[in-house]
Amino acid sequence: MIAPLAIAMGDPAGVGPEIIAKAWQARHDQVLAPFFAVGDVRAIEAVWDGPVLRIDNPAEAASVFDAGLPVVSIADAGEIVPGNPDLDGARCALQSLELATGLAHSGAAGALVTGPVSKAQLYQVGFQHPGQTEFIAERCGIANENAVMMLAGPTLRVVPITVHVALADVPNLISTELIVAKARVTARGLTRNFGIERPRLAFAGLNPHAGEGGAIGREEIDILAPAIEQLRAEGIDAVGPFAADTMFHPRARAGYDAALCLYHDQALIPIKTLHFDEGVNITLGLPLVRTSPDHGTAFAIAGKNAAEPGAMIAAIRMAASACQHRAEALAAAGAA
Amino acid sequence: MIAPLAIAMGDPAGVGPEIIAKAWQARHDQVLAPFFAVGDVRAIEAVWDGPVLRIDNPAEAASVFDAGLPVVSIADAGEIVPGNPDLDGARCALQSLELATGLAHSGAAGALVTGPVSKAQLYQVGFQHPGQTEFIAERCGIANENAVMMLAGPTLRVVPITVHVALADVPNLISTELIVAKARVTARGLTRNFGIERPRLAFAGLNPHAGEGGAIGREEIDILAPAIEQLRAEGIDAVGPFAADTMFHPRARAGYDAALCLYHDQALIPIKTLHFDEGVNITLGLPLVRTSPDHGTAFAIAGKNAAEPGAMIAAIRMAASACQHRAEALAAAGAA
Repeated sequence: MIAPLAIAMGDPAGVGPEIIAKAWQARHDQVLAPFFAVGDVRAIEAVWDGPVLRIDNPAEAASVFDAGLPVVSIADAGEIVPGNPDLDGARCALQSLELATGLAHSGAAGALVTGPVSKAQLYQVGFQHPGQTEFIAERCGIANENAVMMLAGPTLRVVPITVHVALADVPNLISTELIVAKARVTARGLTRNFGIERPRLAFAGLNPHAGEGGAIGREEIDILAPAIEQLRAEGIDAVGPFAADTMFHPRARAGYDAALCLYHDQALIPIKTLHFDEGVNITLGLPLVRTSPDHGTAFAIAGKNAAEPGAMIAAIRMAASACQHRAEALAAAGAA
Repeated sequence: MIAPLAIAMGDPAGVGPEIIAKAWQARHDQVLAPFFAVGDVRAIEAVWDGPVLRIDNPAEAASVFDAGLPVVSIADAGEIVPGNPDLDGARCALQSLELATGLAHSGAAGALVTGPVSKAQLYQVGFQHPGQTEFIAERCGIANENAVMMLAGPTLRVVPITVHVALADVPNLISTELIVAKARVTARGLTRNFGIERPRLAFAGLNPHAGEGGAIGREEIDILAPAIEQLRAEGIDAVGPFAADTMFHPRARAGYDAALCLYHDQALIPIKTLHFDEGVNITLGLPLVRTSPDHGTAFAIAGKNAAEPGAMIAAIRMAASACQHRAEALAAAGAA
């Protein structure tokens, strides 16, 4: 039995509160594990008239989950107007994230699911990290190169090895060491969170046609091939580098468990082309399980009952499934 | 009535001969316009036992098309072993391309469809161009920046503004002038070849999230925005730059007729993810219609009756449809 999952509400003026409420409504159909929201309870009441139950302790969430959406309500987010973010809301989003992370890290919550935040707003209230992932990694004491962002959909998992950097900087940022570090975390993460005993990693080349043997760039030869060789020497099933454009059609996807890509759009174009409404961001390499719907605050549609909860539901399901895989591995280790 | 289409056979040891024969077999089901192959007739006979009819003049193709696959046979390609390319074969592929291009350019053929070639082989027999597209453009007297490679599938058309260059060189190669030149050709090409009166062009940004207002790279502000502004001033419906990862899901694709991308994989990842077996390469900006199946020689499966003709059939259909649109536009201009 896993502990209830903590869902940080994200920006109270975004679609976070609505998709959490809609996920709760779908709890039976989707067979969702018990969860609770962390944030200003009024943000949910502003967009939803279903049953909301304030709780003080995460453990209460399991017993009340069938009757209403459990919420650990935190400090007042000021006036809440869906679609109109403000700095009080940003402060509240940050508090929600901090508390939910702490609950998951301590084990009081089974996992952490984070709702969408506005980074532009967060920066104005003193947030210092590139994104929520780096914040959570720091709170867990994990170095950035050991925390890996994976985007996962029903038929594809991708890892961008560099993320929010200018394309012109990518060739200088990739190194054999970085690729090996990220790939190790990815392989372990696929085993721990997805129960894949021997994960198959496929690497994308940087250049068109993976460089055509050095004719169109040498990063495949100088940087990627040594990384793949090293990983294979460590017993990790790593293949490539492949021409990135031929890696993502259905037959190709069947050949690996995760595609390791060198830059943001190389990874995110295929996953969002295929799974725009159901993509989950899962952070590998943390002591806790953390997932997130792979979309933003969508302020433009907040409060209009127009937000699709599919990605939030997928994030909750993946978090619960990851907890289950970790618990089974622990049990098996204990039994051995 | 359009003149029969010329299909350059490509490398005689690749899958070209087989997919041309299979396309001919599908001529009734697929309602294909009459075409003829250009190449060594023995390359087809080596992989197919259907009726092959040698012709001397493209005009004959229309009357014999129902009875057999018409072939304008050219010089001996040496010994032909499917799956084993050699330099005699490469010379023959080059001759086929040269003759088929000439026939289409002169009007004797209605359009040019090119089969897959091996560039590595062609370079060894003196071929000097980056690819077939540049060769054809030169034969037509068109400057490279005025010939545009478009990849088209059933639900997406993409144009890579830079093509076979190292990713590290892309930021230095893109310029407002180049983007404007390629976009003008794309807009005209969509009208001439696809009958789209007012084409909608959507531009991808170079950096993650299209640069986030300059926070992750400035190419969107310094290079793309002025290009889009200039195109709009010329009356072209140009929008963007958009975050590339959010441009290719079904709702986004419905909003434009072509996505203009800045580098090879940005364009080819989405089209091959969605339409791997049916993608067509069409060259815009030429006096003639030129299409090609968007795949390679597939030497590994040549001669095994395992090649799928879907992309070749799509290339033939698109070429015929483009001829039709051009003819209608001419007729309308004459009537006006």
